[in-house]
Amino acid sequence: MTHHHRAGGEGDAARQAVLALDIGGTKLAAGAVAEDGTLLSFASCPTGAREGPEAALGRLFELGEKVLADADVPIGRLLGTGIGCGGPLDPYAGVLIAPPHLPGWTQIPITDLARERYGVPAVLDNDGTAGAAGEWRFGAGRGVRHLLYLTVSTGIGGGLVLDGRTFRGGAGNGGEPGHITVRSDGRVCKGCGRRGCLEAYASGTSIAERAEEALAEARASGTAGVLAAHQPLTAADVDAAARQGDPLAARVWAETVEALGSGLTSLVNLFEPEMVVLGGGVTRSGERLLGPVRRLVAAQAMGPAARTARIVRAAGGDTAGVLGAAAVGLERLPRS
Amino acid sequence: MTHHHRAGGEGDAARQAVLALDIGGTKLAAGAVAEDGTLLSFASCPTGAREGPEAALGRLFELGEKVLADADVPIGRLLGTGIGCGGPLDPYAGVLIAPPHLPGWTQIPITDLARERYGVPAVLDNDGTAGAAGEWRFGAGRGVRHLLYLTVSTGIGGGLVLDGRTFRGGAGNGGEPGHITVRSDGRVCKGCGRRGCLEAYASGTSIAERAEEALAEARASGTAGVLAAHQPLTAADVDAAARQGDPLAARVWAETVEALGSGLTSLVNLFEPEMVVLGGGVTRSGERLLGPVRRLVAAQAMGPAARTARIVRAAGGDTAGVLGAAAVGLERLPRS
Repeated sequence: MTHHHRAGGEGDAARQAVLALDIGGTKLAAGAVAEDGTLLSFASCPTGAREGPEAALGRLFELGEKVLADADVPIGRLLGTGIGCGGPLDPYAGVLIAPPHLPGWTQIPITDLARERYGVPAVLDNDGTAGAAGEWRFGAGRGVRHLLYLTVSTGIGGGLVLDGRTFRGGAGNGGEPGHITVRSDGRVCKGCGRRGCLEAYASGTSIAERAEEALAEARASGTAGVLAAHQPLTAADVDAAARQGDPLAARVWAETVEALGSGLTSLVNLFEPEMVVLGGGVTRSGERLLGPVRRLVAAQAMGPAARTARIVRAAGGDTAGVLGAAAVGLERLPRS
Repeated sequence: MTHHHRAGGEGDAARQAVLALDIGGTKLAAGAVAEDGTLLSFASCPTGAREGPEAALGRLFELGEKVLADADVPIGRLLGTGIGCGGPLDPYAGVLIAPPHLPGWTQIPITDLARERYGVPAVLDNDGTAGAAGEWRFGAGRGVRHLLYLTVSTGIGGGLVLDGRTFRGGAGNGGEPGHITVRSDGRVCKGCGRRGCLEAYASGTSIAERAEEALAEARASGTAGVLAAHQPLTAADVDAAARQGDPLAARVWAETVEALGSGLTSLVNLFEPEMVVLGGGVTRSGERLLGPVRRLVAAQAMGPAARTARIVRAAGGDTAGVLGAAAVGLERLPRS
């Protein structure tokens, strides 16, 4: 099943466009995106990562063809393909090295494959890097000098635009803001094996896990509360139960806010970004997350940095991955 | 008393030079520096911060005149003055806002004052930013794309060169790598008031304080060891005693290594720098600090980042502040 739609813009032949492909662990998405960020067409389908790269790449490239056809982008107006995916990857060679969310996808020369399929150049970037570029070019952080993007989702990724330039780092993945310490000697981080990373406390997976653990204890003492009815638990369940006043959920949520506030304080001290953009599923809770996190950063970060940084929600929503891939495409694809 | 010398180079009239001024809490330093980093002359004297800005600035500007005379830099070859100082400061307006290590120095228009005194343009930068620029331009990190500089001294400061450009951040102080969390709910950080900052564990001040605290406990139980003879204690005493096998000192030193390793792991994950340059007094212990810190980062940081980052000692030594001020001068001063 593919989900797709056509948005405004209607494939204006006078503008250049990119084909944007977003490869996630659970979902593949594609869009034709005009230079001004107008999403000319969009479609998504499940990744089916367990079937291996060949089947999934087949679906991805078909999805790409479909959105190109939907948007009526003539080949002469197609700059090329921008691709976003979780790391580790080599953005210069265009190779997926071994993304942990795509088991078995090792050393996939994804830009070569895309170029062969579509006959136009292709570029690859870490999806966190692409997300930062997308929010800077099209989204919440248009035109700021320094932007930190964090996607708080199954895991925590992100990227940086510094001095108006997308930052890729020395290893090409643009840094891992999910893997800074917030709780020394804390929970083991499944993403990197170290203890106490931001991801080990504020990712959707960790929120659900911590709630499950608290619930197991509470069941033993007969104080499980409303969360006991949810199986399996999600971060959204925890947020909803906390909102209803459930003490167990409120405790897990407060710990999440505390961890995200602490991690962002370190990051704000470190970069003094004008804007911190938070995206990903966990941020759907909106001000219930952002409000207290903002107050923590304002209270804890150093004065000049705290006064500089605005913390806002990402504009991209469900199409953030595709817009990010489009942004790095527009940045890096050669112009004729 | 001023300490001064003339180095090689001898004021070659064919090259341009900058007057570099470094304003520290305990020491003022000045040098005439050629474009290739040759230190043509150097002098330093105590800051005497308690006497207030006027007396100290008088000494600083005299020191500058002295090194210019020593180096025989003709006015036509003098690009201008580069100044480094602890923040918070405004590097664009050239104003010291209220550096905590210089009590009473509020809103000092230091670049205006320098321009009036020397008749050439002047620029100001945070000393951590200047240190990073100096190591990148003249020192251990010549020509790398991404460099993280940390000065582990009374406090912990630092700066970044990213994609070959000096990073100044949205608030102009280029970020505060000493103020990232390494021990949540740990010691209160005197620099920023938050708990558990890197500076609260690995700065020279913190090393000495933690040793004093451990010593007070040990005295009560009659197990104080060799450190009991040192009053007041310094980080160098702790290092020396740990080397001699004193268990109390070894414990404090191990905690320092652990904190610095943890902080650097977060920073390496975040930036994937090709090079991490460590300067400042505490790094005089050399491999006794760098060796175990390197092993911790290699074991804890994410693979691609860990393989990318080389951790080395700063080349600048006692003249690092002046070379940093010269580097930002060469970067920012207008050329005729």
